[in-house]
Amino acid sequence: MSYMPPTDAMFLWAESREHPMHVGGLQLFVPPEDLGPDFVTNMVDEWREQDYVNPLYRKRPAEPVGTLGNTWWSYDEGIDFDYHVRHSALPQPRRVRELLALTSRWHGALLDRHRPLWEAHVVEGLADGRLAMYTKVHHSLVDGVNALRITQRSLSEDPDNRECLPPWAMPPRKRSTEIATVPKSRNPFGLVKAVGAAGSNTLSLIPGGLRVASQIVKDADLSLPSAPRTILNGRVGGARRFAAQSWEIDRIKRVAKSSGTTINDVVLAMVSGALRDYLSEMGALPDEPMSAMVPVSLALRSGGDDNGGGGNAVGAIVVNLATDRPDGATRLEEIAYSSRSNKRLLSSLSPTQILAYSAMQMFPLMLGPIPGAIKFGRPPFNVIVSNVPGPRNEMYFNGAKLDGLYPVSIVMDGQALNITLCSRGKYLDFGLIGCRKSVPHLQRLLTHLESALAELELSWG
Amino acid sequence: MSYMPPTDAMFLWAESREHPMHVGGLQLFVPPEDLGPDFVTNMVDEWREQDYVNPLYRKRPAEPVGTLGNTWWSYDEGIDFDYHVRHSALPQPRRVRELLALTSRWHGALLDRHRPLWEAHVVEGLADGRLAMYTKVHHSLVDGVNALRITQRSLSEDPDNRECLPPWAMPPRKRSTEIATVPKSRNPFGLVKAVGAAGSNTLSLIPGGLRVASQIVKDADLSLPSAPRTILNGRVGGARRFAAQSWEIDRIKRVAKSSGTTINDVVLAMVSGALRDYLSEMGALPDEPMSAMVPVSLALRSGGDDNGGGGNAVGAIVVNLATDRPDGATRLEEIAYSSRSNKRLLSSLSPTQILAYSAMQMFPLMLGPIPGAIKFGRPPFNVIVSNVPGPRNEMYFNGAKLDGLYPVSIVMDGQALNITLCSRGKYLDFGLIGCRKSVPHLQRLLTHLESALAELELSWG
Repeated sequence: MSYMPPTDAMFLWAESREHPMHVGGLQLFVPPEDLGPDFVTNMVDEWREQDYVNPLYRKRPAEPVGTLGNTWWSYDEGIDFDYHVRHSALPQPRRVRELLALTSRWHGALLDRHRPLWEAHVVEGLADGRLAMYTKVHHSLVDGVNALRITQRSLSEDPDNRECLPPWAMPPRKRSTEIATVPKSRNPFGLVKAVGAAGSNTLSLIPGGLRVASQIVKDADLSLPSAPRTILNGRVGGARRFAAQSWEIDRIKRVAKSSGTTINDVVLAMVSGALRDYLSEMGALPDEPMSAMVPVSLALRSGGDDNGGGGNAVGAIVVNLATDRPDGATRLEEIAYSSRSNKRLLSSLSPTQILAYSAMQMFPLMLGPIPGAIKFGRPPFNVIVSNVPGPRNEMYFNGAKLDGLYPVSIVMDGQALNITLCSRGKYLDFGLIGCRKSVPHLQRLLTHLESALAELELSWG
Repeated sequence: MSYMPPTDAMFLWAESREHPMHVGGLQLFVPPEDLGPDFVTNMVDEWREQDYVNPLYRKRPAEPVGTLGNTWWSYDEGIDFDYHVRHSALPQPRRVRELLALTSRWHGALLDRHRPLWEAHVVEGLADGRLAMYTKVHHSLVDGVNALRITQRSLSEDPDNRECLPPWAMPPRKRSTEIATVPKSRNPFGLVKAVGAAGSNTLSLIPGGLRVASQIVKDADLSLPSAPRTILNGRVGGARRFAAQSWEIDRIKRVAKSSGTTINDVVLAMVSGALRDYLSEMGALPDEPMSAMVPVSLALRSGGDDNGGGGNAVGAIVVNLATDRPDGATRLEEIAYSSRSNKRLLSSLSPTQILAYSAMQMFPLMLGPIPGAIKFGRPPFNVIVSNVPGPRNEMYFNGAKLDGLYPVSIVMDGQALNITLCSRGKYLDFGLIGCRKSVPHLQRLLTHLESALAELELSWG
């Protein structure tokens, strides 16, 4: 057994049937040409016969589950691989649509706390011949960025490499990916862990850490944001809907270059245009501009006051999405302006101030699952848009070419929609996860994202 | 909104991620010969386009969920059929084994309380051409017997009838199946509801009803049973394993007739032999004989003291399974003796006494999900074996012949295995549901059930 820090345990405490706290990923593969009919079955069988299992994939909360016993981790010796590694198939007509429906169901189901907190679902039989894999891992074990990093480690740049191991069969790296390190993680939830870790090991978020964070924010004279209420910012149910699509990075880059903005600005402008169209169709667009919370990586001032030097840090900024503006080009301008100002503000802070400020913005989310804690006044922002780094080159798993790497993140009370994207070679893979009840027809956002990009291309393509 | 009696609400209160409180059923069908390639897809599409929805399938707990708000039901108007009616496929090699694995996963997942509390999963693609359907409904809505009755109503004896409707599209019968009526239900959990309903409407189980029940049992000088501890009687986790198989009723009848016992006795002797073999293999067979709780239907004395006449009543008896006896024939004798004595005792009681006695036997199960409420001393019995009446004749759904009707019941702390069987024409369909962790290799029980029957046939076949 090992001690579970409160910054891990909070994801177990906060979890309920309405608020599963796992992060997922959906990968698509084009199988090698020499694929036999039993390729998937054999792979699943092999995957279930691993002698060595990485400690991360053996970790579960010590019993009794659900009480203060959660503050200890235990490590299972025997793994019930038939349970964790699941072989599935798609119903007719076996399109991506059926795959997304299945992913939605899987992501809405809680992990069993009596076992190590992960599942892998191998899916055979897309009509176009592709294979898919959906994985989920509890957020108390790993954040989204590190989950993706582990996935990438299991892949190879060499199409002829047939020695690839599934993530659970790989030994940890020297610098273990199990521990979310402050400067590396760009996942918004990682921030909350980070505040706990910053300063000293005894500074925890619950409740002392937050008090410290609140004081730091006050001392630095920072104001916390607020956004209009929308259908995206109420209570959520337990069911999910997932949508995913890839866009060529070059299209986005061209717009960014001609308009003098960044790739992230253009992505936010796509999101802004899509949300505007989506909410307008339902007569639910607020008069005030909506905003997005965006985790960012920052180059720090050298000689920082508490880290003893420059380097990188992670923060969260809230960007004005300008959804009140009917013109796409104007929205992009306002987004770029808001994003620059916020980054400037953040880069003037010390790493500890950045973490505290970012965590305070996140804080209402953490209270979400606690009944009565949130009165649902104005949310701090309307949507989370997160961009996580994926592989730069073509990647393969035992000859199968990676053809999609879609993050499946977390929604919670007050934030019923999360858009997380991942770069993959020439593509940006968008993963949209929403509460099935409060975000109806989520898949329409995909069409609207494309329309918003096309509109920007008319001005700056 | 309508008031939710505590006898319904208790199934919501008692539910947790380790203790899902829904009942399920797995049906197999042989499709008609004129089956087109889109038979299943078309059927699912049709099923999702129902204008009329039976109120039972529109019921959900009023919000806020999970608090005292649970004491009201509300009825949804718009049903998200894409969510409730799910189209699935089996992975290679698409045997019954893959179907059971899928059923195990589905049955371990909680229903979403923000929606009407049911799901239907249509499964295409068993390698032998058969189709399957798994349905689940929350126990607060309906008990296992009534769930089965609703299923049967959707079937037809006429293979040429193409007008069959799915259960949710059928109007309620005059005497609504929504309300579990005391004399009709043979489901053990129905008993607990029944005690609440017996006597007067204000007699509820929590906590007054139980006090009354306890007094009745005391007054009648009845003693409550106790059984040895086994691996079947500890805490359960959230994951399940389901196994199912059909046996010809004629084989069981022949043994019952030659041995002068009943079909239920022979079934219990099969269970006894199977448990003995299964636990022996693991070195986990207790020295003392194990026992089974069996819901029974009884002919009442005429002129009963509180129902004003004879009729039928339902009770639960605890039968000695004689697992300490190495010989199958001896076990059957002891089971038949124990069963007769217990039924005689029960039939000497008034309906209210029967209900009270039966409910008191069940009571420790109801406390199971409450942390700390059970110390796991001696359980009242080791396993629940329930026999529910199914169709007498061959049944069809739009030309597809019913080829299996396996109940999928509930396991809980202290009762990690439940065996429920259903008669169907010439067959008895056994459904075994177990906690995946505490009942390893559950499927071996199927082989042992067959061996136990074969052993009995050697003496009395």
